[in-house]
This record gives sequence, C-alpha cells and structure tokens, in this order.
Amino acid sequence: MGKHPTADASQQTALGSDELQLIDAWWRACNYLSVGMIYLLDNPLLREPLKAEHVKYRLLGHWGASPALSFVWAHLNRVIKRDDLDVIYMAGPGHGAPGVLGPAYLEGTYSEIYPDKSEDAEGMQKFFKQFSFPGHIGSHVTPETPGSIHEGGELGYSLSHAYGAALDNPDLIVACVVGDGEAETGPLATAWHSNKFINPARDGTVLPILNLNGYKIANPTILSRISSEELEALFVGYGYKPYFVEGSDHAEMHQKMARTLDVILADIRAIHEQARVNGSTERPRWPMIVLRTPKGWSGPKEINGHKVEGSWRSHQVPFADVRNNSANLEVLEQWMRSYRPDELFDADGRLIPELKALSPEGARRMSANLHANGGVLRRELKLPDFRAYAVDVHHAGQVLQENTRPLGEFLRDTMRANMSTFRVFGPDETASNRLQSIYEVSKKVWMADMLPEDEDGGELARDGRVMEMLSEHTLMGWLEGYLLSGRHGFFHTYEAFAHVVDSMFNQHAKWLDISRNHVRWRASVAAENILLSSTVWRQDHNGFSHQDPGFIDLATNKSPSVTRVYLPPDANTLLVVADHCLRTTDCINVIVADKQKHLQFTTIDEAVVHCAKGIGVWRRASNDEDDEPDVVMASCGDVATQEALAATAILRERLPELKLRFVNVVDLFRMQPASEHPHGSTEREFDSLFTTDKPVIFNFHGYPWLIHKLAYRFRNHENLHVRGYKEKGNINTPLELAILNQVDRFNLVIDVLDRVPRLQGRTAHLREDMKNAIIGNLNYAHTHGTDRAEVADWVWPF
Amino acid sequence: MGKHPTADASQQTALGSDELQLIDAWWRACNYLSVGMIYLLDNPLLREPLKAEHVKYRLLGHWGASPALSFVWAHLNRVIKRDDLDVIYMAGPGHGAPGVLGPAYLEGTYSEIYPDKSEDAEGMQKFFKQFSFPGHIGSHVTPETPGSIHEGGELGYSLSHAYGAALDNPDLIVACVVGDGEAETGPLATAWHSNKFINPARDGTVLPILNLNGYKIANPTILSRISSEELEALFVGYGYKPYFVEGSDHAEMHQKMARTLDVILADIRAIHEQARVNGSTERPRWPMIVLRTPKGWSGPKEINGHKVEGSWRSHQVPFADVRNNSANLEVLEQWMRSYRPDELFDADGRLIPELKALSPEGARRMSANLHANGGVLRRELKLPDFRAYAVDVHHAGQVLQENTRPLGEFLRDTMRANMSTFRVFGPDETASNRLQSIYEVSKKVWMADMLPEDEDGGELARDGRVMEMLSEHTLMGWLEGYLLSGRHGFFHTYEAFAHVVDSMFNQHAKWLDISRNHVRWRASVAAENILLSSTVWRQDHNGFSHQDPGFIDLATNKSPSVTRVYLPPDANTLLVVADHCLRTTDCINVIVADKQKHLQFTTIDEAVVHCAKGIGVWRRASNDEDDEPDVVMASCGDVATQEALAATAILRERLPELKLRFVNVVDLFRMQPASEHPHGSTEREFDSLFTTDKPVIFNFHGYPWLIHKLAYRFRNHENLHVRGYKEKGNINTPLELAILNQVDRFNLVIDVLDRVPRLQGRTAHLREDMKNAIIGNLNYAHTHGTDRAEVADWVWPF
Repeated sequence: MGKHPTADASQQTALGSDELQLIDAWWRACNYLSVGMIYLLDNPLLREPLKAEHVKYRLLGHWGASPALSFVWAHLNRVIKRDDLDVIYMAGPGHGAPGVLGPAYLEGTYSEIYPDKSEDAEGMQKFFKQFSFPGHIGSHVTPETPGSIHEGGELGYSLSHAYGAALDNPDLIVACVVGDGEAETGPLATAWHSNKFINPARDGTVLPILNLNGYKIANPTILSRISSEELEALFVGYGYKPYFVEGSDHAEMHQKMARTLDVILADIRAIHEQARVNGSTERPRWPMIVLRTPKGWSGPKEINGHKVEGSWRSHQVPFADVRNNSANLEVLEQWMRSYRPDELFDADGRLIPELKALSPEGARRMSANLHANGGVLRRELKLPDFRAYAVDVHHAGQVLQENTRPLGEFLRDTMRANMSTFRVFGPDETASNRLQSIYEVSKKVWMADMLPEDEDGGELARDGRVMEMLSEHTLMGWLEGYLLSGRHGFFHTYEAFAHVVDSMFNQHAKWLDISRNHVRWRASVAAENILLSSTVWRQDHNGFSHQDPGFIDLATNKSPSVTRVYLPPDANTLLVVADHCLRTTDCINVIVADKQKHLQFTTIDEAVVHCAKGIGVWRRASNDEDDEPDVVMASCGDVATQEALAATAILRERLPELKLRFVNVVDLFRMQPASEHPHGSTEREFDSLFTTDKPVIFNFHGYPWLIHKLAYRFRNHENLHVRGYKEKGNINTPLELAILNQVDRFNLVIDVLDRVPRLQGRTAHLREDMKNAIIGNLNYAHTHGTDRAEVADWVWPF
Repeated sequence: MGKHPTADASQQTALGSDELQLIDAWWRACNYLSVGMIYLLDNPLLREPLKAEHVKYRLLGHWGASPALSFVWAHLNRVIKRDDLDVIYMAGPGHGAPGVLGPAYLEGTYSEIYPDKSEDAEGMQKFFKQFSFPGHIGSHVTPETPGSIHEGGELGYSLSHAYGAALDNPDLIVACVVGDGEAETGPLATAWHSNKFINPARDGTVLPILNLNGYKIANPTILSRISSEELEALFVGYGYKPYFVEGSDHAEMHQKMARTLDVILADIRAIHEQARVNGSTERPRWPMIVLRTPKGWSGPKEINGHKVEGSWRSHQVPFADVRNNSANLEVLEQWMRSYRPDELFDADGRLIPELKALSPEGARRMSANLHANGGVLRRELKLPDFRAYAVDVHHAGQVLQENTRPLGEFLRDTMRANMSTFRVFGPDETASNRLQSIYEVSKKVWMADMLPEDEDGGELARDGRVMEMLSEHTLMGWLEGYLLSGRHGFFHTYEAFAHVVDSMFNQHAKWLDISRNHVRWRASVAAENILLSSTVWRQDHNGFSHQDPGFIDLATNKSPSVTRVYLPPDANTLLVVADHCLRTTDCINVIVADKQKHLQFTTIDEAVVHCAKGIGVWRRASNDEDDEPDVVMASCGDVATQEALAATAILRERLPELKLRFVNVVDLFRMQPASEHPHGSTEREFDSLFTTDKPVIFNFHGYPWLIHKLAYRFRNHENLHVRGYKEKGNINTPLELAILNQVDRFNLVIDVLDRVPRLQGRTAHLREDMKNAIIGNLNYAHTHGTDRAEVADWVWPF
C-alpha cells in the first residue's frame, strides 16, 4: 500500500495568511459557542469575569465531536462561497449538535427562524441557555436545527441519509461527517457501498468525511486503532479515493483541509465532466476525507493530570463541577477566553463583519439550504388514475390475482410521470414481490461492474430508478434522505424482515412527530410508504423464520399523528390505499398485502368506497339485512378475509337461519377510539358495526392481541374474540398454517358455534364435520405436499 | 495492490489423483443429494428411469448456494481427518440447507439422529421427501439440522455467530461460509471487524470463507462486481489476509482449495505459536478465503437458451415444470445422473466405503461436533451469593442507589468464578450503565492498537472478557454464538436502542422455541440475558430519540415458552432477578432497570420473596389491611414504582380514610392469564390482587396499552386504568417527563380522585393542589433546569 495520495498536496499552502486568520477566527467563534452552550446560563460574551452564577446548574451536552464538525463547516463555507456550490451538511457523530448549532447561529439562520435567539448578547444568552435545557433543545441535530435532515440520536444512518439526499440532485453536494463511533455500526459499515448506486450523470455528490477523533463514550474506536495501511485499504476497497487530513495544529490543519477540499472539488468536477460531457458510464472512484483530529479539539489539554483533549474524557462535559469549584471555574474561563471572543463579536455581541462575510448568503448557507427543509422543494406526485389498473371483479370472490401485481403497474406509471422525483426501494425483492412491471419504465440502478449476461433478464441499468441492495438499513436510509430532501418514494420488503429496520422506523416517526407538531418552519414532506409483502401466511418453503407480522405492532406504539396502517384485502383495495398513501405527507404508511394469488372481492368502485371508510359491512357476505345479527364475523388482511368469508359461506349453507354480519377492516386504526388516533372510530360507529352485545369473531392478519390492544375501550370488547398468528408454524401449506393458528375457515365456524347461544346443542353434526375437515386437510397436506384443490381453488359461492 | 497472495500457491498440486477422485466423488454425492431433496419424491437412487410420479408435486427449495457449501465441507473434512481438527461449520448463504444436509447424511449423523432417514434407499427417499415438505424441514439450516447453530433464515449474522462460538474455545476452528448476498447486510459488513476482539492465545479461530457465487435472488451481488483490487483491499482493510480460490473447473478447484487450506492451516498454526508459545500480544492478520464459484455450480449450464449455472436463475429451483414436461424431466434425469450415483452408493443405497472413509469420525464430524449442540458442553455457572451485594435497606424508600451498580459487582464475581465460560456484552456502555465493577476482574478485550494513554482509565486489555463495540448487531451475534456453543453471557444496552436488534431477538426466540419444543436431541443452552438500562424515564439530555420502552412489547409477541420480562423496582430485586436469570435455560430474559440513583424499597429478604411471586401486595404501602380496598394502586418498573408510591403517600396523608392497596409487578407475564404464559396468573390470583370491581390505577414503565394487551381477559380489566409512556418527551427533567406522560405522583392522585366514587365532591381542594403542583413544578424545571429538591430528593414517609 502506497503513501496517502494527498500526503504531498496537503502540505502545500491553500490559504493566504489573512484568509487563514479569518477562517480560524470563524472556527474559534464556533467553538466558543459550543462551550457556551454547554456551560453558560449568563454572561455569554464574558464581558465580565466569569462567576459561579453564570454557569448552568446542571451541565449537560457533548463537547467531544463538536470542534471537528465546525471545522468542516468553516472550510465548506469557503468553497461554497468561492464556487457558488449547493451543499448540505450531515452530522453523523453522536451528540454533535453544538458543532452545527454554532455555525447556524453565526450564519444568522438561527436568529431568522427563532427571533428571540437574536444576533446580540441577549440572543446569545438565550441561545446558550436553551441547549440541553428542560423544555428546549437537545444535543442531537434534531428537527429544530435548521440545515439538518439527520438527527443522529441513534447512530448509523448518516451516510445512507446522505446518499438518499444526493439521488436525483445532480448539482448538490452532501457533505457527510461520519463519526468513528458510528462507523462501527452495521448500517454505516455497509452504507459505504452506496457508491455503487450513484450515477454521476444524474445524481449529486456525497462527500464522506470520516472524522477519526479516536473515541466513543468510553472506548477507542476501531478505525482509529488500525494501521494507516489497513485504513486506506478499507476505503479503497469500499471504492473510494481517500484523502487524509490528520493533525492537531490549528494553522497546519486549516491549510491541509483547504488544500484537500480544493483537490477534491477538482476530482468531483472531473468525474462530472467524464459522466456528463464525455458520457462515461463507468463507476468513478469518488473522493472522501479521513479527518483525524483530537476528540475535544481545542479544549483543555489536561485536567488534574488526566489527558482531556484527544481522549474519551472529552466526550461529554470535560469537567463538571464548576459552580462549586473555583479552580474549575477558572479553567472554564481560560478555556473560553482562549477563543478570544472580544475579537470575534462586536460590542452588541454580533459576529464582526469580516467574519460574517465568510458565510455564504441566503439559501447557499448550509443552515438554510432548501434541500434540508425538503418540504419546500416538494412537488406533488403526478399520479396516474389508479382505476386504470383495477382488476375486473365481475363477481366477488371468484377471480384470482396476485394482489401486488396491479400495484406494480400503478407504480410503473407513477414512476414514468415522475422520473426525477420518485424512486422504489426494496431488498432484492421487486420481482419477488410481483412489482416487476416497474422495470418497463425504469430498471434497477447498478453502477458496479456489468456482464454480458446481464442483458438477459438482469433488469440492470446505469440510469435505473429502482433501488435494490440486500440491506434494509441502507434502503431505508436512502428513502429517508430522499423524502426529507423533498422527494417521494416507496419501500417494499418481506414482512418478517421489516423488523430489521424497526429502530429506523421509530426514529423516523419521532422525527416526523416533532417536525409536524412542534417545528412550524419545516414544510411537509412526503409520507414514507412501506409495503410489507411476502407475508406470514404464505411462507410455504421459507418456514418459521419468515413468519412475523409484528412490524405493525411497532407502528401502533408511535405517535398517532404520524402512523397509519392499512391491510387491503385484495388488489383493488390495495390500489386505492396506495394511491391515497402516495398523496399523504408527514406520516408513515404501512401497507400489508401479500404477493401471491388471492381471491378478489371488490370492484374498484367498491374499493374506493370501502377504503374511504376504512372499515365497513360487506353486505353480500352478510345476511342480517340491517337487523341485529346473531354474530359478527370480521376480518382484517387478505388471507384472513378469505378464510373468514369461506367460514361464512359454510355457515350460510349449513345454518341458513343464522344471522351473520360480515365486517372488513382496511384501516387498522379504525379499531381504536377516535380519541386515541385521528383515524379512530367513534363509539357510535364502532357499536353500529360490532353491536354492543353480540359475539364478534375477528380474523386478523397479525398477532391477535394487537386488536385487543387497540379496541379494549369499546363497549363490546368483552365479546370480541380475535384469531391471528400465534407463532405456530414451520414448513406448511397455506391451509395447514392457517389451521395451526386457528384462522382457517373450519376453526372459525367452530368459533361461531361456540359463541352463539341459540345454536348450542343443534350443531353437533356441523362441528364434527369441521373437525373432520381439519384432520382430513392436514393429512392430505402431509401426503401430497399441497392443499386439496377444493380448498386451494375455493371460490366464494355468493 | 499486488497479485493475490496465493495466486501461485493455489496452482500447485495438493491432492494425489486418487485423493482428487475421491473428494470429487464425495462432493458429487452431496450435489446429488441436494438435487434429490429439491426434486424427488421417490426413486431416490435412480435405479429405474425417472418418471413424472417420482417428482414432487410442488418444487420448493434452493439449489444455488448448495454446491459451494458442500465443496467447502468436503475439503474441510480432508484436513479435519488428517490433522484431527476440531471444526464447526457455519452456513451463511440463505437457503443453504441442502448443502449442509447432504454432508450430514453422508456422514451418518442424520441417520443416527433420525433413524427413519436411514443410510439406504428407503431412508434416502424419506430424506428427500421431507425437504421443504409440509410438516417437515425447510431450506434453512434450522435447529433440526445436526451441526448447525446458525439457521440463516434472516441474513447477516453468520460471521458474528462464528466469532461468538470461537471465543474461549482455543482449539476450535469455526469455518464460516459467508454468502455474498448476506455480505451486503449491515450486520455482516461490520462483523468482519470482530477480528479486533479475538485473542489468539485464548480464543479459537474463525475462518471466513466468502463465497462469491455472484447473485442474490434476482440481482448480482456487490462484492462479486467490484474489481479484484478493490475486493482484496477491502479485506486487507478489514484486517485479513485474503486467499483467492476462483474458478469452475472441478478438478482445478479441488486442487486450489486443498492447497489453500493447507497454507491457511499453516498460517493459523503460526499465529497460535506466536501467541501461545512466543507470547506475542499483537493482533495477527487472520487468513480468510474468497471462494469465487458459479451459482448453482455443477448444475445445468443452460436451459431454453438462458444461462443457469453461474446465474441468478440457479437461486431456487432451476427449472420447475417437471411432472408435466418430459423434456424437463429428461434434463433433470441427465443432471442427476451426471453425478454418477451408481458409483457413489452401493446396492442398498449406502455410501460406498471408500467415500465413507473420507468423513472424520464421531464428534469430529462437523455434523456431530458437540460445540454445535452446545448444551451438551454447558456447565452451570458458579454463581456467588447475590445476598452479598445487597443494598442495606433499613427503611424502605429512603436510601438512594444506582440500581445497576450492585448488579455490576455481582457480575464481577460471577465473571471471576467463570473465567472461561462467561462474558458480558454491551455497546460501549458498561461504565455508562454503572456496571464498571466488572473491570476489577476483567477489562474490555481490545486487540486493535493500544496507546500509552490507555493505561489511564482505558480499562482495555488483550485478555479482557468484557465485549464492547458500537454495534448491537455484532454483540448480539457474538452472544448468540457463545450461548449456542454452550457458554453463558449477559448483554446490556440502552433501552431505546435494543430495537436495533429486534429482528435478532425474534430469530433467536424462534430458534429456541423450535429447539426446546421440537428438537429433542438438542441439549438446553443458557438463557440469553438482556438488560435494558438507561431507560426512557431518565433521558434528561438525550431527549426524544432515546425514549422507547417498546422492546418488551416485541418480547410479548414471541412464544411464551421462551420469553420472560422482568422489571425489578430497585437494586435488590434486580439482584434477585439477575441471579435467577443466570440459572435459566432455553429462554430469553429481558430485564428492565435504570442506571440512575433511585429509592430502594426492598430488603434483600423481601426481594427474594417478592421476586419469587413475581407480583404482590406491598403491605407497608397499603392501608387496606386485607380488607377490600377502595382503589388498587399498582406499579411495574423503577420510576413507575417511585411515582406510584409518592402518590399513595399524598393520598394517605390527605385522605387517611381512603383504603388503598399497593401492588407491585416484577414479572411482567404475571399480568397474563396462566393459560397464555407459564408465568401467568390464575383468575383467582389476579382477582385476589386486583379485586373484581374496584378501580385499579396501574403505573407502568412502558407503553400503557401493553398491559391491556396482556390482561384483557381478566375480570376486572374494565376497571384497569394504565398510565405509561405515550411518546411525549424531549429534553425534560425526570418529573417533567413523568408529568407529560401522566405517570407522575400528582396525576396519579388525580386519577384516583376521578375513579373512586365515594371521594367525588369531597376532594376539590386536593385536586386543585395537584394541578398547582404540576404547574409549579414545570415552571421550576423550565427556570432552573432541574427538578425541585422536594421532588428530586423525595423519600417515602411510611
């Protein structure tokens, strides 16, 4: 392995001495603000000697990552201003907010958005006080932070977010500082491979800046403790051209960083020229920076004989006992004064004009870049008329169709109409989930090597818009970055493996909750649409590990203002739901729909009406004729609905006098009270569907207790009997799996017999038949490896 | 980047021509079995011409990954036998079971365990039929598969499982085949760094074998489509010495693989000698293999003009329509006969002796290695007496203690007594979670570079037994590998970020469920113990992103036979719970306990009694004196308990005539009926605690609806009023966060006033005081940044 590629270049001088002084001063101002945020309650400009009462009662916040974040920001500003670049900033290191808040304040953006944090002493005092202060802002780059689309509270997603933002933004540079702690996470470790999915002719640039400050909370980081040969090889292996900027001397590091950025910008221009002028379709070797700086850089070198700068001791508050310890108070004052605030801020506390002039202007400021408040750039999707893709259901329950296939056609034409603002994301499963019609308009993007045989059905293209990689984390990160920068997307995955991104779902829901409900200046972003397909009930050869419908349980724990869950029973309802979801903003829509062939129940017109209500009686499946029924049969989910309908068919044939009402639920939150969720049902609505005292057999797609969790407040809850998946399964035919979990037609009939008092004693024969049917079908499955045709090909007789 | 390091070596001849013939024949037998499993219902040895009725009705299973898996197995057998090695096998590629089942059958292990799958034609027929057949085994390396501790149903964990199994097993080699699809996942991408935590003096060897077969389900893989320079650099960067075995010609590849394995074994011996004889403490550059072979290797080259071998078309069943298509039937027969079964199996269908002789014997067979049925090697932990670590609680509710700190001391001495069979795992948070006493006995293992300053509080050591890396995935994978190979462990993490490993929890629970309930020959393994600390209620400076108590919701969806959830209210109950959990097997124990200072309520004797019941009345907090109370106040969780007790204190002071019963829940599943969970309560137990008709105010640590989900079947459920976390939070003082979610003492008092009919109309003053207390405390928090001393330092007055 050779020397670092820029070892020589970085020693050259890029900054004149004035420029160097200014950029260093701007950085000092940032660092001053970072320390002020963590420590000061008052006396923000140190215009009087620091006293105990100027210091916060409780010292919270994180110093360690901040100086390097501001350092990068300062240097990016230089080139943004010089070259009129369009750059957004992604702060990966945990608790990095001070390093971003400081620049946002110096650039004036913060005061524009929050006028009480004005650019003067009074505003600075408030700016300091609010940080990590109850009722105010935290130490992550939360939605309240202008210029941020990446909170970084949970680590690992900065780089995939950055790549998502760069897609289809050809002139945008996303500068992404990756923390070396974060770099140990799995999601981050694989996100480096995102460069195989970026087309330089069409997409923007991600400039990763790995900040090796050496420490996490209490440990060194792996990447800071391997040889420079290994480190360089790793990033060459990931497909980058790494530039090393390493050191601690301020002046020297300014020169190295400036020079390196100049070289890198030339690299990027050359890559763009190759792709955009010369038409090259090869994957370039994108530049990146390894920035090795001390943790807590520019902070106290040592306290009480312990190393602080360049140590894990700088991670949070480097020294805490300040109000009661005058020695520490003095250390703090000396530290803050080492930044020479009087040279940085004028008499009023405003950044001096020479430094102010270093920031770009208006939306060129990274803190005010519109891509980081993507809602303002968002244009509504041009959606084709979903009716054009409808399955023709001339008779309910007799046509078979893969539920997701028409959706694929709808998504295909959605893509066609929005060729630079819409993408589809899935882990190697677009075809498996029967969405492959999309390829007619756009294939899978692939910038890695191509082989001649890819021509034969590979569906790969340099300019594809379907994103497939076997990493749910990376896909979800790309999608989030794409949405938060103002575009639209659709993610689909195997239901069981959606749990891989549970925590990303949680964090995105929290981001949306705060943005929507507490941060007025953030414009609405497109909904995150998640299709869960290849569901629990059809894992005939994948078995137990592929059976988990619990992702929707997760969704019910997050803020009702941002969570939506739909379980369309057939292809047409899926179309209606998808059309709706693609129009929504500031929420996460989870849609559960299987890819296999299923009976079709609703015409497209019926689907529109049914989905608009989200829950409703299916009259053709009911025979209670608006009278009070003996029993309500309810269903939610495609397979659950089919089995419930089959049960009602048996009941109506064998017990014609039984008054049955059939209710189907598409919008899961209709099962909650309206007081709990905006899609909830009023008591009156709920009672009118489910009665107040009749038995309700509810056949559910997911874990049965989820329905109880939602509906427990309703009056007839005690008569609600829910069937669903109970972790009983292995390699099973569809019917066998249903039987094991008692969501099959035969067990549902028995459930009704058990719960309708007036039937008791008169139904022994039917009950016996059902038991025999169960045994007979299980035997058949175990002998033949398939279900009996009479079940597999069952159609609805009404 | 130079040439591949073994480019020359691999061209040498390692196998004599007889040996080559035999190893190839053994591999052909494996491939024959793989194809047979996928296609054949009968005529297993092709002793008669293949007819449609010999073929399965429904063709399920995956061919693509299998040949390379068996290829590796065959070659490992050669060196195991020659050098008497102790090797287990980890199959990472998805759906790789045929490639592992075949060898297990040829080695005789399969027939030993499942006598009906005997080593003859009849047994082989059953062996074929059962594969991917309803009610039988799947296409993953499930618990039913001898030699497996890694199912691979969900991808990404093979390498961390492998490293976990190698820890503290100095003579073990874990051969881990990593699929190139799987290699794209985040967890796998960072697991390569596990080599920084393996000490060659003490731990075993992981031999990663990256199988580049080029394709996933329908896409090429990233690592197969980058230049060989990048590929080599990547693994050099990860710290390995990569050996490349690339090709498709069978004879040539046998020679290359054999030669490469010989070189690698020499490398491993040299590493061991350096560490074990010469005492080197440097991290070695461990060898690994990049095995580039065609997907579906040895299968049909082409079908209907489309490439099959070496293409994604080989992923599952290469051609499906066989029963009704005589051309395909012929292709199948030719394909199977290409392996020359008559040369491999004798007249009875038994592998011929010359081939049989290639397998190692007894427990040296990878399919019978005891480490892969780790329960048989497991010895019970030697546990110190937990009473020795108890907090002295002379008066309940007046001592403050960090709840997890005594646990740290208990774990320290547990480690001391089990220095080769117990490890603690956490993402850079052992000290943060107050478990740092462990370092007195064993520090954090660190094989990456050390610096002089690490001496000052770094707590790092080459032979440490505390595993810290900022990757929950890797830690959990290590732990699972460690447990399944027969050892014991303890994992702790921030509560909110446990969701990062939700899907790993699900998969491990499924593994345990099947192992425990369906696979009799698997011996019991130690429980997976998960401590969730740094909980939702104490995120004063971390904010909203760190608030998520939903991991326990996840746990309640998995099989009751393997899930346990405990919420000890104080340090002594935590000790009792931890002691219990460390003694359990075949389950996952989730323990929720915060690290901050909390009031201590139970003496160690009381804790023993209380935890044994899992739920119970706290008499000193109650004044109903075994009479029927007016109201039941219940709590579950440390902070929840403190606030509930504070509420009862207010009520008893202000309304002495109110009859209160205080119930505390440690074992969450006590809130479920006994019919649903082995730890559940009978109706009588539940009613005797919660009454059948009195209001119950339940103050819960987690999402409130979880309690409804568990308890909805009980009689008094309709009077159960649960408070818990409702996604309301940001930067808040402890009391402020409690108030926002209404789990604070003041709101709980109001809850009681609202629900006890006989109080109504007489309590306006108290209600007003509570409202004022809420407003006053919020104002104080927002002014001072802390809670009022009277709340923060509150002690229990009874």
